[in-house]
Amino acid sequence: MDSTGTPAAQSFLEVAADSHFSLQNLPWGVVARPGEEPRCAVRLGDWAIDLARLQASDLLAVAGLPNGVFERDALNDFMALPASVRRAVRARLGALLRRDAPQLRDDPALRRRVLLPLADVTVLAPVRIGDYTDFYSSRDHATNVGIMFRGRQNALMPNWLHLPVGYHGRASSIVPSGTAVRRPRGQLQPNAGEPPVFGPSRLLDFELEVGFFYGGPPTELGSTLSVDAADDRIFGLVLVNDWSARDVQAWEYQPLGPFTAKNFATSISPWVVPWEALQPFRREPPPQDPAPLPYLRGERNASFDIALEVALATPRQTAPHPVCRTNFRHLYWTMQQQLAHHTVTGCNVRPGDLMASGTISGPDRDSRGSLLELTWRGSEPIRLPSGEERRFLEDGDTVIMTGWSQGDGYRVGFGEVRGDVLPARPD
Amino acid sequence: MDSTGTPAAQSFLEVAADSHFSLQNLPWGVVARPGEEPRCAVRLGDWAIDLARLQASDLLAVAGLPNGVFERDALNDFMALPASVRRAVRARLGALLRRDAPQLRDDPALRRRVLLPLADVTVLAPVRIGDYTDFYSSRDHATNVGIMFRGRQNALMPNWLHLPVGYHGRASSIVPSGTAVRRPRGQLQPNAGEPPVFGPSRLLDFELEVGFFYGGPPTELGSTLSVDAADDRIFGLVLVNDWSARDVQAWEYQPLGPFTAKNFATSISPWVVPWEALQPFRREPPPQDPAPLPYLRGERNASFDIALEVALATPRQTAPHPVCRTNFRHLYWTMQQQLAHHTVTGCNVRPGDLMASGTISGPDRDSRGSLLELTWRGSEPIRLPSGEERRFLEDGDTVIMTGWSQGDGYRVGFGEVRGDVLPARPD
Repeated sequence: MDSTGTPAAQSFLEVAADSHFSLQNLPWGVVARPGEEPRCAVRLGDWAIDLARLQASDLLAVAGLPNGVFERDALNDFMALPASVRRAVRARLGALLRRDAPQLRDDPALRRRVLLPLADVTVLAPVRIGDYTDFYSSRDHATNVGIMFRGRQNALMPNWLHLPVGYHGRASSIVPSGTAVRRPRGQLQPNAGEPPVFGPSRLLDFELEVGFFYGGPPTELGSTLSVDAADDRIFGLVLVNDWSARDVQAWEYQPLGPFTAKNFATSISPWVVPWEALQPFRREPPPQDPAPLPYLRGERNASFDIALEVALATPRQTAPHPVCRTNFRHLYWTMQQQLAHHTVTGCNVRPGDLMASGTISGPDRDSRGSLLELTWRGSEPIRLPSGEERRFLEDGDTVIMTGWSQGDGYRVGFGEVRGDVLPARPD
Repeated sequence: MDSTGTPAAQSFLEVAADSHFSLQNLPWGVVARPGEEPRCAVRLGDWAIDLARLQASDLLAVAGLPNGVFERDALNDFMALPASVRRAVRARLGALLRRDAPQLRDDPALRRRVLLPLADVTVLAPVRIGDYTDFYSSRDHATNVGIMFRGRQNALMPNWLHLPVGYHGRASSIVPSGTAVRRPRGQLQPNAGEPPVFGPSRLLDFELEVGFFYGGPPTELGSTLSVDAADDRIFGLVLVNDWSARDVQAWEYQPLGPFTAKNFATSISPWVVPWEALQPFRREPPPQDPAPLPYLRGERNASFDIALEVALATPRQTAPHPVCRTNFRHLYWTMQQQLAHHTVTGCNVRPGDLMASGTISGPDRDSRGSLLELTWRGSEPIRLPSGEERRFLEDGDTVIMTGWSQGDGYRVGFGEVRGDVLPARPD
């Protein structure tokens, strides 16, 4: 039941109570049937709903929705529409899929064309990503890393509490969940003060993040978005695993930031959870002291209650073992603030741009979002039920991240982002 | 005459001896006639040659060249072809345009269709840029900046002589020459130790760089390119002005590098000078001590002799005044090394990716490629012939960068990249 005491609406399609993909979620994605062209879809339970065919059936008539906008291999054209149009499409889909709506429910021929069992399709990367930006917005994470690299006195840089620190990432190497990641080789400096060596990273890590896709018309170069305007320009969210080679990073990152330590792979969950679906889980943003400059303030600034978990599977374990449980609410800087800051000097943003949060760590030991922090740079290994220990990732390990918001009787969730670690290429 | 004593080949189209766009250059670009769709072109003297129509005429038959590949608003599809195909197209174009070649010369109807006076077309951005990377490969520049920000003892970070330091930039805000750039507003910290303020950047600067576009098939995630393989995957070069707000940069850049200080605009010259056209100007790369790791070595590693200049125009001057004269040869890390390093951990690259050199400064005072260095952080202003002084850029200033290689009786040049500074938006 929702806060008004009304039971949450149900679909005529069966959806388990703990499914991430409830009627209240309806995340956007891209799927392909064997031998057919990819098309845009939404997910409900274990079904993908073919939006291209649904639109062709005339059941999805919405003012401002161009014909054929879902007959694409990416959501970008749909993402470029105004928020009002995507909200109308979402409302229409919700109405069509309700238990008491007969149009699709009672049309067996249309159901066969439009409702695709997930087992029969391949789920693809949802978006053609133009630019990718990675923020650094968790205070606990920035503090932990700062202590390890610069000592407790200088843990947070002087700018950190005044602006959402961020940097540009690599768009080409963003891959959907399920893509295996090869252990990178690169420059390492195993002994401080000695020359670097070349070899496989020994300190391969994950970073638990949540990213958002910009939606709406592109902004113009030289223009800005306020925090309140930004709240309308967030299309939806995905889980992000920002794979990191800590030894490469430590050697290369000064003075211009991480480069080859991060650009070998970034994994995302394939179903884009709509911003609208997350609104019931809106929460007060964390208190910010000092108060940020006016361009980082807004009435529509908000955080969200989203439970997040990381589990580790290894060849010797029978089941994945949770190693991190945290929450999106631990982020100090909100997504609206991130987007406003991104445009403050006039940088233009385009539909399909991805902006990730940075590692989300909480105040507790098991709420740290990376092995670097969980094992305190390897000095406090994690013990797995199999008896194995982990300081950093080993070949054959699988990292599984998941996240969801819990409603009364339903979930709005991300599914998972998963990746296997392959051994480094031989010389 | 070239080094064999043979006079340089001439075209039946008149090309001034000091034109950057000789028969030996034939740079790639994209142009549009009023009311028509953009298409790919090459430039010769003051003509743009419509490659789409030339291919349709059957004079550009080359094995492996897809039909219609030039009927595009960007060079990307052509750039994705193997180096052998683009070299064959280039050779065919060179042969067709020679003084003694009658096919095009003596066909007035074809000439009217294919030869477009530059004054009749708009020159557009040449490439749809996927990812943009900016290196930091000039030792003089890195040393100058290091001295100013960290003192002489720590000027070069320990990693600098071992790898081409680079970072990911913003692709969305790359604009072609002629686009005016608005003075950014952002977070500044005018007084060390005090809270930041919001306002227009007071320390707006240019950075003189040269960038290359990756060409050839995309590489696979997890694979690498050697220095020698990289030499075949460079499509061509452009001038790059990496506009920088120094006050924003100083406040925001630690620990993850420049972000809003750079992403408000990056300007490029619109004609892509072919890698093949620069081969006569190949030079020994600079000595590197310590010797780099093996993956950064190769027989085909090379630098190039390219003269580079920056001039400043102001409303009170009658002509632009040169403020910097330097040379591409001052780069410590070569483009082949940059590309090899970019892929070392397995990052994939795609046709249309842009990689810029970082500011190119030489050892002399007037060979410094930014105002930050030329005025030593504003402490030694430049005096212009008008009597004006410049520490950093002022509203109404125009920055003009140019570059060329000088052959015997011909030039292979970049034309210019130019941008006016507009005042900041009012509050």
